[in-house]
Amino acid sequence: MTAEAYKAAGVDIQAADAIKENIGAFAAITHNDNVLKGVGFFSGMYRLRGYKEPVLVSTTDGVGTKLKIAVRLGHYESLGIDLVNLNVNDLVPAGATPLFFLDYISFGKLDAQVVEPLLRGMAWACREIGCALIGGETAQSPGLYTGDDFDLAGTMVGVVEESAMVDTSRIAEGDVLLGLPSSGLHTNGYSLVRKVFGIDANPAVLHRRHDELGHTLGEELLIPHRCYYQSLSPHYSKVKGMAHISGGGLIGNVPRVLPRGLAAAIDTSAWKPKPIFKMIQSQGRISTDEMYQVFNMGIGMVLVSSPQRVSALQKALPEAVVIGHVVKQDGPDRVILRRS
Amino acid sequence: MTAEAYKAAGVDIQAADAIKENIGAFAAITHNDNVLKGVGFFSGMYRLRGYKEPVLVSTTDGVGTKLKIAVRLGHYESLGIDLVNLNVNDLVPAGATPLFFLDYISFGKLDAQVVEPLLRGMAWACREIGCALIGGETAQSPGLYTGDDFDLAGTMVGVVEESAMVDTSRIAEGDVLLGLPSSGLHTNGYSLVRKVFGIDANPAVLHRRHDELGHTLGEELLIPHRCYYQSLSPHYSKVKGMAHISGGGLIGNVPRVLPRGLAAAIDTSAWKPKPIFKMIQSQGRISTDEMYQVFNMGIGMVLVSSPQRVSALQKALPEAVVIGHVVKQDGPDRVILRRS
Repeated sequence: MTAEAYKAAGVDIQAADAIKENIGAFAAITHNDNVLKGVGFFSGMYRLRGYKEPVLVSTTDGVGTKLKIAVRLGHYESLGIDLVNLNVNDLVPAGATPLFFLDYISFGKLDAQVVEPLLRGMAWACREIGCALIGGETAQSPGLYTGDDFDLAGTMVGVVEESAMVDTSRIAEGDVLLGLPSSGLHTNGYSLVRKVFGIDANPAVLHRRHDELGHTLGEELLIPHRCYYQSLSPHYSKVKGMAHISGGGLIGNVPRVLPRGLAAAIDTSAWKPKPIFKMIQSQGRISTDEMYQVFNMGIGMVLVSSPQRVSALQKALPEAVVIGHVVKQDGPDRVILRRS
Repeated sequence: MTAEAYKAAGVDIQAADAIKENIGAFAAITHNDNVLKGVGFFSGMYRLRGYKEPVLVSTTDGVGTKLKIAVRLGHYESLGIDLVNLNVNDLVPAGATPLFFLDYISFGKLDAQVVEPLLRGMAWACREIGCALIGGETAQSPGLYTGDDFDLAGTMVGVVEESAMVDTSRIAEGDVLLGLPSSGLHTNGYSLVRKVFGIDANPAVLHRRHDELGHTLGEELLIPHRCYYQSLSPHYSKVKGMAHISGGGLIGNVPRVLPRGLAAAIDTSAWKPKPIFKMIQSQGRISTDEMYQVFNMGIGMVLVSSPQRVSALQKALPEAVVIGHVVKQDGPDRVILRRS
């Protein structure tokens, strides 16, 4: 049977069916024996085993307009990786283990050349962290998007034993803040970056090589959002809190783990941000304050540790750098940035 | 602190923060004591209690281009209701109970006048079914959408005791198909409807009253997607299978519950579709075959029952109509539509 009128209206059921089969094949490489039904039934089904008092931990997020850079350069695997990693990083602060992932892709015009590498990237990243790609939706929404753009979001569900949840209420004055480096911009601040470099008007700037970056601007902007789950999960019980530095930067995210009345004093000379951040700041004439509100500035995850545990944590995580301390809040600011 | 450069690039952090507070208030009306952290932390946390062998059942879906009609008419509460109901209806076939919901809204330009009624609608619908609105993402993606359009998707996670899962493998030849009426188009076929009535080019047609509809075309097209969870969940153990009739219509969805080798013989004279379906078909000169592939044609959920249970089910669900039977598959078609 064909659906000619629907196709003429911009929705191609046959193309969608063909893509669904391929999605099923990508998803299958992520499945374990807890997956009862994967892509195909009305819902995904996942057996939860081995927990006494399970707490389900869930998050939904998208890649923002990093997508527009990926579309310009035709790189989709890395965008699929971004989508999985930014979501699992939001489960880490709870001390959770990822279980399964669902994606949402919405197109003006369905394009298998985009869906397949996207799903491949998601499946790779899911498999890295033992998470099942269990379902999703590939929607055709003619007339909704500009040009070849589309939208992309994902939901990850994980679990933590209630007694093993990271309990941020024990965080106290004098605790130490450790930072783990980011791989680049991760998935935040891209609308500002697009404006600063005039990318929408002149996409050719993405192909220009910059000596300070060591490659082109486009390569730098598409470095995948790093995943912190594998390196941090063995140490969940040793930290007092973790903050994923996404939209809002250090200023927006570190306070999310701090109990009321406490603030973070951060010494920004403790680490050296990658050159891309300086390039954005000088090209866009952006204040330092704003840079730290919009971008991760080189730190993708912050750990809160008791002073006693710092050396053990740094031994286990050699790239962790002491970036500051927990202090009493004195004034409106919950993050105080200083350069020593 | 302000973020002037980011705002100039189309991303307003302060507006987003203000909206987040309101979202938290809407979400709170859906929370029960299983919710450990709601909107605000990096992830939502939900205590799973009372299950021996829990199977987590999950689905992600969006409202499609019904959104464009809602934008034209400025009706957002109903779109929020649609989003929740279409997702919970996809959990019903597994025999699941909804636990929590996460939404994803992505704007070109953030608009509180849209976000708030959307969230209000979602919160209403979540509360109806005892589901906690536990998290979500409201993204600002300047340059991604056409005009005032945005995108909207949701993920629902539910649970079912493994021993209580609806087991479609017992479906056999001679079983009876019962249909439950839809409230209208639900959330499928809107790109075709937009084309048939020329809505994008001439939105004024939405305001025209049609005697056969009893109201305007716009009112008809925005009737919320009906929720079947409350009426069906008490009867999960009495049915052999359930199919949510969404994208793909009866032809695409009924086979999803039928074991291999079986087909559905449906008598389309058993019920009377609402007048909107005839209006679309004649205005768009669409074949009857295609109508049944794209639209629900008046049936939003199909139940598969043993012949012995039919009268008990109809007593419990007075609106359930016998629409056909399960037969041996004979040829390529898995759904055979006839008019008696």
